[in-house]
Amino acid sequence: MKKTHSADSVKCQDEFYMSYALRLASLGRFTTTPNPNVGCVLVRHGQVVGEGYHLRLGEPHAEIHALQKAGRLAKGSVAYITLEPCCHYGKTPPCVEALIKAGVRRVVVAIEDPNPEIAGRGLYQLKQAGIEVTSGILSTEAQDLNPGFLKRMRTGLPYIQLKMACSLDGRTAMASGESQWITSEQSRQDVQFFRAQSSAILSTGVTVSADNPALTVRWESLPKKTQALYPQESLRQPVRIILDRHHKVTPQHQVVQQPGTCWLIRTKTDHQDWPNQVEQWIFSSIQWPDKKNAIDLGSLMTALAKREMNLIWVEAGAELAGGLLEAGLVDELILYMAPKLLGNTARGLCQLPGLNELAKAPEFVLQEVKQMGPDLRLRLKPDPGFSISMGK
Amino acid sequence: MKKTHSADSVKCQDEFYMSYALRLASLGRFTTTPNPNVGCVLVRHGQVVGEGYHLRLGEPHAEIHALQKAGRLAKGSVAYITLEPCCHYGKTPPCVEALIKAGVRRVVVAIEDPNPEIAGRGLYQLKQAGIEVTSGILSTEAQDLNPGFLKRMRTGLPYIQLKMACSLDGRTAMASGESQWITSEQSRQDVQFFRAQSSAILSTGVTVSADNPALTVRWESLPKKTQALYPQESLRQPVRIILDRHHKVTPQHQVVQQPGTCWLIRTKTDHQDWPNQVEQWIFSSIQWPDKKNAIDLGSLMTALAKREMNLIWVEAGAELAGGLLEAGLVDELILYMAPKLLGNTARGLCQLPGLNELAKAPEFVLQEVKQMGPDLRLRLKPDPGFSISMGK
Repeated sequence: MKKTHSADSVKCQDEFYMSYALRLASLGRFTTTPNPNVGCVLVRHGQVVGEGYHLRLGEPHAEIHALQKAGRLAKGSVAYITLEPCCHYGKTPPCVEALIKAGVRRVVVAIEDPNPEIAGRGLYQLKQAGIEVTSGILSTEAQDLNPGFLKRMRTGLPYIQLKMACSLDGRTAMASGESQWITSEQSRQDVQFFRAQSSAILSTGVTVSADNPALTVRWESLPKKTQALYPQESLRQPVRIILDRHHKVTPQHQVVQQPGTCWLIRTKTDHQDWPNQVEQWIFSSIQWPDKKNAIDLGSLMTALAKREMNLIWVEAGAELAGGLLEAGLVDELILYMAPKLLGNTARGLCQLPGLNELAKAPEFVLQEVKQMGPDLRLRLKPDPGFSISMGK
Repeated sequence: MKKTHSADSVKCQDEFYMSYALRLASLGRFTTTPNPNVGCVLVRHGQVVGEGYHLRLGEPHAEIHALQKAGRLAKGSVAYITLEPCCHYGKTPPCVEALIKAGVRRVVVAIEDPNPEIAGRGLYQLKQAGIEVTSGILSTEAQDLNPGFLKRMRTGLPYIQLKMACSLDGRTAMASGESQWITSEQSRQDVQFFRAQSSAILSTGVTVSADNPALTVRWESLPKKTQALYPQESLRQPVRIILDRHHKVTPQHQVVQQPGTCWLIRTKTDHQDWPNQVEQWIFSSIQWPDKKNAIDLGSLMTALAKREMNLIWVEAGAELAGGLLEAGLVDELILYMAPKLLGNTARGLCQLPGLNELAKAPEFVLQEVKQMGPDLRLRLKPDPGFSISMGK
């Protein structure tokens, strides 16, 4: 029987190398969508002999990069991989096969891949080939690295980050609509970072026609630290998704003219002359008592997940924010708060028409508070002990 | 000529003992009003030979406690005092005289006393008596210990802490008025701590008639750490000041029935049968274009300072909060924020009727963010580079 001390020391080493593999994985976080971020480290006799991470759909997986670097040294090594290796022919051949062929002795993974085409079969095949397998090392950190991919694979829905920005008294604009700028330069730069990580940016025709935003990632506005990791020539534009049932978006708006795909979600198509990157999605509408022709957000999200949208970053007004909250679709609230007071006549943060009792108000759990220049950034998740149901 | 090294070492020692004196001073912070919090340490040959702090009006000052403890050992000692010693006959004889008589060799103070009866004369008299005097050691910390006393002495106005509590979207109650409880147990306990430190608690007749609050310090609700420093038998009730121009407060309300003084600020008196501790203040009203018979808050604060109110803790609704902000009377905003969303129909945090441009919105500088159970507590001060003037 092994002594506890030795088991502890193996676990400690496993965590050390897994933490390194996670850092590698995170280097792909601006570009891998719809794929997950994965990192891999090969260790032989206490030496890193190969390392790699996945960068982009269609390009080699993390394991392949690492095996290539290691060459013959891969034989007898331990592979630390942040996600269970694939065992199916996708756009690239299965990594499990490559690991077996290279003669890897042991495979350590952070989490299993919930992708129904893998889901434990990767680890099973490795074991069948006589390779020792350990799973669950730094699994929380690995989850946090791929919230979108994991949620989509597990539930068929994208992970939704709802971004909001307001004053201390929860106001987004003066009564006149004047709103530029409530939050600071630093907060807006931080928004660029989140946009760059997302698969898509969701907004509405109302917001587009009011502010004419580009809703792109502006490389020159990214934080310096991000720029250092994410060269300008690799810049990927998240899909811009605009809820536009009232056809407020025109071919002249910035959101359709910028490079990168733009989807207009509408209940019927129009025949204007749209640029090539624009696609009109015709989507069934639902007659809610209080909302004529509202698009059903739950079905929309299912459809977006089918189009491989992992993580959706929402920048919109009080109505969509409230709609997503009421439908229980928000996974994370990211709230930029400027140290100002705008008073009770200014515009409010979110519409929750179904809410009439304090006990039913959506509750959150603070995850993090960070200062952004003069502002605060709060990250919150819905209280798991609390179910939002404001009954339509 | 002394070497720099030696001067540094003296300064370092001075800060060490001053920091101790400040800690002693803070032990009086629940009870000294209208007097300042003062601590004193006597050091002789590197040994603390006496220490003391001021506890309550009419009782001995910090210096006297320390001199009594030191006895004959005070001779030739250095006195560290957080505030310039007094040189006038108030409720007790002057401390300057006692220090001279005891043969203290050197006096180190954190700040001079802005009280016009002292204002440097205490230090002058010490120097005249041949005592070495050093001033300005840990002056910032000493300022922070007595914001109310110092502001009143310097400007003839009390220091005003505006407490507000709201949801993430800046709401204080549902549209129906339902508001118990938005914030957590921990936040409410923290409020008790701030109440206990204040000279007075300011609210309005509207709040009293809506919620019937006691507005007292409940010893059993104080944080355990505060209870340990502040025995129940020493409990002092801050004066309860209620703005009540519409005569909404009745002799049945809790705020008048609880132990401790209550002042009703009105534009005319009434002849109901009020308990003894209730005083009706008749106060001239001002005809503002939008507010009939509003009480002029600036004049009120001047009058309250004349009645020796150092620090006023405001717990009221959106109207008084806005009024104090518009009048530029708020020194500190203390905002408890519950991680909930109440939606746009819920009640707002503050009324700022004169505000119509974003550029004129009151701005603050974050001083501190602290977690209070599930909630956040933000402490903010008005941005000194920003003048609130929303033109009445």
